[in-house]
Amino acid sequence: MSKIISMHYEQGVLKLIDQRKLPGEFVYFECRTYREVEFAIKDMVVRGAPAIGATAAYGAILAARQFMQECAGDRKSFLRKMEKALDFLNCSRPTAVNLMWAVKKMKDCLAENRDASDDTLMAAVEQLAHDIFNEDRDLCISMGKHGNTLVPEGAVILTHCNTGALAAAGPGTALAVIREAHNTGKKIQVYADETRPRMQGGRLTAWELMQEGIPSKLIVDSTAATLIRDGKIDLILVGADRIASNGDAANKIGTFMLSVLAKTYNVPFYVVAPVTTIDFEMEKGDEIEIEERDASEITHINGIQTAPEGMEVYNPAFDVTPQENITAIVTDRGIIFPPFNEGIAQLKESVQ
Amino acid sequence: MSKIISMHYEQGVLKLIDQRKLPGEFVYFECRTYREVEFAIKDMVVRGAPAIGATAAYGAILAARQFMQECAGDRKSFLRKMEKALDFLNCSRPTAVNLMWAVKKMKDCLAENRDASDDTLMAAVEQLAHDIFNEDRDLCISMGKHGNTLVPEGAVILTHCNTGALAAAGPGTALAVIREAHNTGKKIQVYADETRPRMQGGRLTAWELMQEGIPSKLIVDSTAATLIRDGKIDLILVGADRIASNGDAANKIGTFMLSVLAKTYNVPFYVVAPVTTIDFEMEKGDEIEIEERDASEITHINGIQTAPEGMEVYNPAFDVTPQENITAIVTDRGIIFPPFNEGIAQLKESVQ
Repeated sequence: MSKIISMHYEQGVLKLIDQRKLPGEFVYFECRTYREVEFAIKDMVVRGAPAIGATAAYGAILAARQFMQECAGDRKSFLRKMEKALDFLNCSRPTAVNLMWAVKKMKDCLAENRDASDDTLMAAVEQLAHDIFNEDRDLCISMGKHGNTLVPEGAVILTHCNTGALAAAGPGTALAVIREAHNTGKKIQVYADETRPRMQGGRLTAWELMQEGIPSKLIVDSTAATLIRDGKIDLILVGADRIASNGDAANKIGTFMLSVLAKTYNVPFYVVAPVTTIDFEMEKGDEIEIEERDASEITHINGIQTAPEGMEVYNPAFDVTPQENITAIVTDRGIIFPPFNEGIAQLKESVQ
Repeated sequence: MSKIISMHYEQGVLKLIDQRKLPGEFVYFECRTYREVEFAIKDMVVRGAPAIGATAAYGAILAARQFMQECAGDRKSFLRKMEKALDFLNCSRPTAVNLMWAVKKMKDCLAENRDASDDTLMAAVEQLAHDIFNEDRDLCISMGKHGNTLVPEGAVILTHCNTGALAAAGPGTALAVIREAHNTGKKIQVYADETRPRMQGGRLTAWELMQEGIPSKLIVDSTAATLIRDGKIDLILVGADRIASNGDAANKIGTFMLSVLAKTYNVPFYVVAPVTTIDFEMEKGDEIEIEERDASEITHINGIQTAPEGMEVYNPAFDVTPQENITAIVTDRGIIFPPFNEGIAQLKESVQ
C-alpha cells in the first residue's frame, strides 16, 4: 500500500494534494464548492484518470450540499441544478473516461433517490462518492497484484507520466505494479520519464518513488529510446485514460512514442488500467477525443519563458497507442492478452 | 543568408550571443581570455558543433595574445603554454568533432610558424581563426543549397534542437536548408521540437524561425511521434555533432527516437552537416563518446525545481542514430546516399 493519499473529504471540505506545487511544496488545495472542484480538475491540482473520477464524485457532494440549502425543499429545482453541476464537472477534462463514468453513476444515484427524503438522498450521494473512492483503492491493489506476475526478479522498468497514488485513490495503476514488485522484494529499478510538458514524471513520479525508497533514475522523455535499443529496459509500464474495445489506449503524450520503440526492439509494453477505463461503447482509438491544452504549458515553466513571445504551439495532452503495440493490458480483473477485442468483449459480458 | 551572427571577434574581445539567456534576453557574453572561452563552451553560452569549433579558434587568439605578453620573447615557453591552452579548449565538450578539428588546425598553424616573428605568428593565428569562421559560413550556405533540392514545394518539415545561425558561423546546418527553402518561396511549414533538457528548440530555433518569418509550431519532443504516424510530416532535418565513416551520426538526445519513428512510418530522415563533422578515422557510431551532463539540467529549469531534491538522473546530451535509419546525409560538398560507407570513403579521398 501507499502512504500517499491524494484526497480526503470531510464535512463539506474536499482536500486535494496540490499536485501543481510538488515537489517543491506539499500543500493541500481545499474545495468547498463544486466550482472549486471543477477548477481543481481543469487546472490539474488533481490529475490522473482514476483520481479525477473520485474527485468529481466528491464534487457532487459539495454541489448537493449547496443546492439542498438553496432550493429549500424544491426537489425539482434541486435535481435540475444538480444535473447542470454534474454536466459542468463532466466537461472539466475531455479524455479520461473515469470522469464520465463517475458522473454517470452519480446521475443514476440521483434518479434512484429522486423521491427520497433530503437526508436519505444526501446520504446516498455521500455513500456513492466514498464507494467510488474505496472501490478505486481496491482496484489499484488488485492491479498491482496482477501486474506483478509480469515483473521478473531484478527487472529494470521504464514508466511514463504519473500513474501512482497521486493519480488514484489507492497506490495507482502502473505505479501500483511497481510498488507491489518492490514490496515483494524483487529488487527492481525504475527509469521515470519526466513527461513534458507538465513534468508529472519529474515532479510527481520521482517524488513517489523516493518516498517509497525504490531505486530509480529520472530521464528526459527522448532518452528512453536509447535505453530501449540498448537492452537496458526489461519492461515498460504505463497507465491509460481511455481504452477502446479493440485495445487501443489513450494515455499521456509520449506513450505512443515509447510503444513504437518497444515494438521495434521487442520490449514488453504493458498498459495498466482499471476496467472502468475501458470504453466498451467505443470501437477504436481514433474516436477518442484528444484534449489540446494551453500553449503556455510549453512556452513557460513556472512563469519563466522557454520560448519566444507569440510562438505558435501544438500541445495535445494525450496520444493513442494502437493495440498492436501493446503486449498486454493489466486490469483489476486480471490480465488481457491479444487478441484484445475478444478479451475485452468477454470482460464486457462479465461486468454487465 | 541569416541576419543572426552568433559571434564577433575584434581587438582581443570575442563577443558571443549569450544563448543561455534567449529568448527572454538578447545580450552578448564577452570573452577576453581563453579560460572565459572555455567556460562559454562548457556552460553553453555558445553551442552547436560548428559554432563551438569557430569559438575555440577565436579562443586561441586570446590565448596567444596573453602568452605573447607573459612569455616576452621566450618562444618555447609560449608554445608550451599554447599547447596546454589548446588542450584545455579541446576538452571543453567531448562529442563535437569540429572542436577537435579546429584545435588541430590551430596546433598545425603554430607548428608551421614556430620560428616566425611574433607579428607573423600572431597574424597567422588570427587569420586561421577568421578562415575557420568564414569557411563555416560558406559551408552553411552550400549545405542550404544542396539540402533544398530535397525539399518539396509546400513541405511540412520537422526539426530537432537548434541547427541554425546560433549553432554555426553562417545560416546553420539543417536550419540553413529550411532558410533556403523558405527564401526560394517554397511555402514550407516547420514543426520544431522543444528539445529537452536544454530547450534549444523552444528557446533558440523558435526564435530564429520567428526572426525569419517562417510559419512554424513548437511541440514537446514526444508529440513528434503522432505527427509522423499521422502523415503530417513530409521530411525530417537534423544536424550532427559527429558522423562515423559508416554514416552513424551522433546528434542531440532525441534524434535517434525520431529516426526510429521516421523509419517505421517511411518519412525521409536527413542529416545535415559539413564534411568537417565526419570523423573519417572512426569506423562506427558506437565508438563516439557521449557527454553526460549535470543532473540539474533535468531537475531544475532556470533555478526552479522540477524534480525532488536528491533524485538520481541519467542525462546523456547526445544519442547515435544508426546509418540504416538515415535517408541521406547533406554536406557542403553534396548529398551522400546509402551505402554511406562508400560515399564517405569517396569523400575522404577527395578532401585529403
